[in-house]
Amino acid sequence: MAIDEDRKVTIAAIAQEAGVSVPTVSRVINGRSDVAPATRQRIEELLSQHDYRRRGARGGMGASLIDLVFNDLDSPWAVEIIRGVEEVAHASGMGTVVSAIHRRTAPTRQWLQNLRARASDGVILVTSDLAPGLHAELRRLNVPVVVVDPAGVPSLDVPTIGATNWTGGLRATEYLISLGHRRIGFIAGPASLMCSRARLDGYRAALEAAGIPVVDELIQPGNFYHEAGFTGGMSLLDLKEPPTAIFAASDQMALGVYEAVRQKGLRVPGDVSVVGFDDLPEVRWSSPPLTTVRQPLVEMGILAARTVMRLAQGEKVESPRVELATELVIRDSTSSLSR
Amino acid sequence: MAIDEDRKVTIAAIAQEAGVSVPTVSRVINGRSDVAPATRQRIEELLSQHDYRRRGARGGMGASLIDLVFNDLDSPWAVEIIRGVEEVAHASGMGTVVSAIHRRTAPTRQWLQNLRARASDGVILVTSDLAPGLHAELRRLNVPVVVVDPAGVPSLDVPTIGATNWTGGLRATEYLISLGHRRIGFIAGPASLMCSRARLDGYRAALEAAGIPVVDELIQPGNFYHEAGFTGGMSLLDLKEPPTAIFAASDQMALGVYEAVRQKGLRVPGDVSVVGFDDLPEVRWSSPPLTTVRQPLVEMGILAARTVMRLAQGEKVESPRVELATELVIRDSTSSLSR
Repeated sequence: MAIDEDRKVTIAAIAQEAGVSVPTVSRVINGRSDVAPATRQRIEELLSQHDYRRRGARGGMGASLIDLVFNDLDSPWAVEIIRGVEEVAHASGMGTVVSAIHRRTAPTRQWLQNLRARASDGVILVTSDLAPGLHAELRRLNVPVVVVDPAGVPSLDVPTIGATNWTGGLRATEYLISLGHRRIGFIAGPASLMCSRARLDGYRAALEAAGIPVVDELIQPGNFYHEAGFTGGMSLLDLKEPPTAIFAASDQMALGVYEAVRQKGLRVPGDVSVVGFDDLPEVRWSSPPLTTVRQPLVEMGILAARTVMRLAQGEKVESPRVELATELVIRDSTSSLSR
Repeated sequence: MAIDEDRKVTIAAIAQEAGVSVPTVSRVINGRSDVAPATRQRIEELLSQHDYRRRGARGGMGASLIDLVFNDLDSPWAVEIIRGVEEVAHASGMGTVVSAIHRRTAPTRQWLQNLRARASDGVILVTSDLAPGLHAELRRLNVPVVVVDPAGVPSLDVPTIGATNWTGGLRATEYLISLGHRRIGFIAGPASLMCSRARLDGYRAALEAAGIPVVDELIQPGNFYHEAGFTGGMSLLDLKEPPTAIFAASDQMALGVYEAVRQKGLRVPGDVSVVGFDDLPEVRWSSPPLTTVRQPLVEMGILAARTVMRLAQGEKVESPRVELATELVIRDSTSSLSR
């Protein structure tokens, strides 16, 4: 990693203050591991005090890069977030480097090395399930980090952009109640994720506000994937008194419910109304088009890119966590209860 | 754009040979437009003779970048190609810079400037409908270019990776014939694209080989989008003697046919068998799961990344155009004709 000419003064000063050599400071700046922990800590504190910002060799050339990192690119909403980030980056003459770290340790280490080598100006992590230690390593690289977190993990120590999951769960359920439904099934997301709890709590809150009892057998476990929607849908339709509407906590699970309804020889929405959560592009083309709670994924990407660019310029952000509004999008998979 | 120390000799030699100044050669290398056309041409010829390869300031640092460029990121198969390219780039310690140029002139120009500034090691264009002059400008930048072209434009002067569209059309139609269907509708892609013609010709060839007449009223125009599938499906189902199977030249149009079938109060596959083309991830979750012709999009991305990396290392590629095999994926939207 080359160090800009005009930054050598700062590094020399910090080396002197810390009582170490200039190369030792450089090693810390470049995130290398061959520095004793106590020394590293002392140097990092001084770097932080002096507001030293690591810059790569490309720093002065206007060829800035934002790194956008997913666990896996097979997430159905990945491309939506890429669209938002790319739009902002492109307009500012920045490149968007897209990576998947595949939840494995080796690729993460490799990716950190690549990140260091290309002197990224900022990192957007799209994940709520980070490899242990990744945050600490990024902090060591002194790169601004923003997390886009559709899954809703609380209390990260970096700026986080999420969506209003509880309100989304509430609105979807209120809408089904307004159509006359009283037996409303729910298929949940993974219990370990805050967004799953928030959506379920929104569902419960709407029922309770309408004076409708929350019935355990109507709440099925799930994991956001299609198969869980199918299984949960089958279980609900097999009940002695099946629900007239099913709210699935993800679009993929809602499409799984469609398939359960079809295999039972029933119809959406004639026999069962179905609501999803996400508003992925493809659910406009499901048959019938899906009523769902829209997560503003493109806008979350846009805000993440703007935030990381502000951090890269040394600005502070107002709030550590921002939640963008979800919105109920009414299509053809829901209808009034006519029984 | 900085020029590496060890390349100055070459540039100086080329300047001397061309009878121009070193800065003039640098201007040509950096793709700037303030050089007289005749001078530029002379210099470019010399650069090419001496096999000069432009490298950016990052060149020696191992922080290589592949640029992956789409017209628009809302294409349903964009993320599949990103996955393939990212997999190869990541494994080689390269970053994948994803851009959308949005078919407008200004963003293309901006993107070219960004590309120059970040000293990209290679460009993968995912498009068959390039802005005029883009190829010429890329040639001027002396960056290796590979085109991933699911749409099948012939005779580009850069290595191109496509899929076997004609064979895909043939296999899908042969399969429907094997199920006993004789009246098989077809909804076409845009007539301007070679891949549309290839798929239609494959359909025709299968019918003719089976001695089934090709009937004009069974062939509907389309454009690959959902709406066209819906409209074409409605027209086919409104025929005096409607088809018992419909082959749509894209998955999105096949899902449009699903919606037409649903709105007619009919069932897939009980009343109408449906086959698509693409195998987008989401059609596994359509209801019923869609039988379709798989385009190997991830593999096309992988091959494109490998090819552009070989070109960047100065290797030649064997063939200017490679077509990867399509494959019929049989799911639940097709059944034997039982009438």
